[in-house]
Amino acid sequence: MKKIKITIAYDGSRYNGWQIQRSTDNTIQGKISAVLSRMCGHMVEVQGSGRTDAGVHALGQAASFEIEESWSADHILKYLNQYLPEDIAVLSAEDAPDDFHARFSAKSKTYSYRIHTSSIPNVFERKYVYTYTDKPLNTGRMRQAATLLLGTHDYKAFCGNPQFKKSSIRTIMDIRIEETESGITISYTGDGFLQNMVRIITGTLIEVGNGSLSPAMITEIIESRDRKMAGFTAPPQGLALVRVEY
Amino acid sequence: MKKIKITIAYDGSRYNGWQIQRSTDNTIQGKISAVLSRMCGHMVEVQGSGRTDAGVHALGQAASFEIEESWSADHILKYLNQYLPEDIAVLSAEDAPDDFHARFSAKSKTYSYRIHTSSIPNVFERKYVYTYTDKPLNTGRMRQAATLLLGTHDYKAFCGNPQFKKSSIRTIMDIRIEETESGITISYTGDGFLQNMVRIITGTLIEVGNGSLSPAMITEIIESRDRKMAGFTAPPQGLALVRVEY
Repeated sequence: MKKIKITIAYDGSRYNGWQIQRSTDNTIQGKISAVLSRMCGHMVEVQGSGRTDAGVHALGQAASFEIEESWSADHILKYLNQYLPEDIAVLSAEDAPDDFHARFSAKSKTYSYRIHTSSIPNVFERKYVYTYTDKPLNTGRMRQAATLLLGTHDYKAFCGNPQFKKSSIRTIMDIRIEETESGITISYTGDGFLQNMVRIITGTLIEVGNGSLSPAMITEIIESRDRKMAGFTAPPQGLALVRVEY
Repeated sequence: MKKIKITIAYDGSRYNGWQIQRSTDNTIQGKISAVLSRMCGHMVEVQGSGRTDAGVHALGQAASFEIEESWSADHILKYLNQYLPEDIAVLSAEDAPDDFHARFSAKSKTYSYRIHTSSIPNVFERKYVYTYTDKPLNTGRMRQAATLLLGTHDYKAFCGNPQFKKSSIRTIMDIRIEETESGITISYTGDGFLQNMVRIITGTLIEVGNGSLSPAMITEIIESRDRKMAGFTAPPQGLALVRVEY
């Protein structure tokens, strides 16, 4: 047996997220596992770098699995792209060290969140942006707030799972807020993110940008460890997992 | 009454093309006319610069209509974008001279056709490209053939409507063939195009590119005025009306 690493892009619009669930096989992990299992004639378990929520996209999700030595990375790449649905694509497949694990070996992840602020819709990007036109967003204020979010903190206030019992300490290395032709793109790089964390931080930054929250409130929100103190959970369609660094 | 000109972008995937048909209202022209008629309380007829086929997209279709003086272009723009489906967007609305007519005033049109030639699918662009991976395409040969298509010719051989009785003489001013990261984009500018003409020329250029036809055959095909001599009709999803020049 050997280890293979794959990089995957997907349009998450019609899936229940990355992670296989008991109640449904309508997940990206499930689709990939099913095609590999069919190729091999036995069950192949696929480990992702982490979950993405229902409706969230990926430009470069990473995953790994064990497979017989006889299957070449090139054959696996072609087979997967031939049999996966058209909204999931495998960008690359390569042999990886035996101890490689898509989740445990990951050093950092980069997500991007796209906010469309123009009153003119972009019909071709409509499934990949969150349209927010209620109030103007002040990116200066958003950048001030973002600075306070950087570093190593207990991000419990930005965790969407109230039952979460493990450590909620994470490190955010970079938050970049760029103004685009039709809106704002926020890119986040961190060593890991809690459930809904990028979407809740984005919602909070939007509330700072529109004037509902002051940038300085960020420190108070972090210290509160209270989900109710943070902003709304921005909807999934604006979010994409851009890449996983190893 | 006054004349208004609008510029429209649409994802044509789920429509039966631009033009209103008796049997269905699932057309872009029909949707726009319905929203304007609702706004005005009476039927508003919308003239497009020309038809686009079922499944063809537009980055900049143009249309015009007559409306009471009291409706401002800005109000019309907002109203249309509020009530049109999310795959149709009005990019601009402006007052136009009384004698302006989106179809008869048009000087030229530019279309682009996107061919995806990589074996790795692009999940986010999948509805806006035609994936062709059968054989490599030689763009040098395609450019040679394109040169022979330029100018003023009787393009009857590239007309998809065998019943077409009017003049099939048109002028193509420019054909640009660009290699992109994952394929080839062909842009066409002409004073007008026959039914399916851009798609049939594209299919013919693909057959030149893959070696089935020699570039020099183009002259023979044009002279034949015979649809059977030209190449296949490339599928609609790769095609977009980029802009209409007045």
